Amino acid sequence: MQLVPIGIFHTCYKTKDEAPRQGRDSEDIAYIEVFEKYIDGLKDIEEAKYLIILYWAHEAKRDTLVTKTPFSDVPKGVFACRSPNRPNPILLDIAQLIDRKGNVLVVKGIDAIDSSPVLDIKPFYTEIDVPEEILSSCNKKEESGT
Amino acid sequence: MQLVPIGIFHTCYKTKDEAPRQGRDSEDIAYIEVFEKYIDGLKDIEEAKYLIILYWAHEAKRDTLVTKTPFSDVPKGVFACRSPNRPNPILLDIAQLIDRKGNVLVVKGIDAIDSSPVLDIKPFYTEIDVPEEILSSCNKKEESGT
Repeated sequence: MQLVPIGIFHTCYKTKDEAPRQGRDSEDIAYIEVFEKYIDGLKDIEEAKYLIILYWAHEAKRDTLVTKTPFSDVPKGVFACRSPNRPNPILLDIAQLIDRKGNVLVVKGIDAIDSSPVLDIKPFYTEIDVPEEILSSCNKKEESGT
Repeated sequence: MQLVPIGIFHTCYKTKDEAPRQGRDSEDIAYIEVFEKYIDGLKDIEEAKYLIILYWAHEAKRDTLVTKTPFSDVPKGVFACRSPNRPNPILLDIAQLIDRKGNVLVVKGIDAIDSSPVLDIKPFYTEIDVPEEILSSCNKKEESGT
């Protein structure tokens, strides 16, 4: 299973230490340069307000299976936390699509360090990407007015 | 960028035609067998109610850049839709974790065909995986009682 980079991130984070813990924490603008070879894949992407971006943590350790998180002294399994260190370091940001300029997507909500390879872009759909229970808890609050 | 399978799906869908369009549409139980080599990565996974599962669409076409969706006769770019056919066919399900039995996770909400290689498992966190705007629209409904 061999991946191909479909693009590259241009961000203001040059090192891991500069990057926010989560893309959600960032108001910085980032740019996804989609390589010309794949530009047809962007057709109609402007219809999406939010995108799921999969990218490659090219500096990650791939032999880590348990790791400490910032929230506890007790180590967790890498599949039970969001550490970038994991056997397949595919990271995921839910980004806001601000603009498209040809083969460049202008996005917000990114924690990728500069030059990270981009692997995939998918439109985010609330109805399939948010568990029904979470949506219905919103609706219940709505119904009860509490 | 070479991927390693960290496990394998056992599902009741033997072919693409048998699989639901989206995992969300399914009430069927599926099983993720995590290979023994990676079992330590599961430590504390029971704390998660929902998981982001990344898996490999091993039957996908990787040279498709535009494709028709079930919703329109006008083709879309693969990065603007959720087709399994894309340059890096990494698919994503938000699954409910029902149970863990050693190295096997019992899950619901899966559209993977049987024997799909599993690439990564991450806990789903509402606060980082649901755009703030969607959460706050819930809160606004709550506040207004409408």
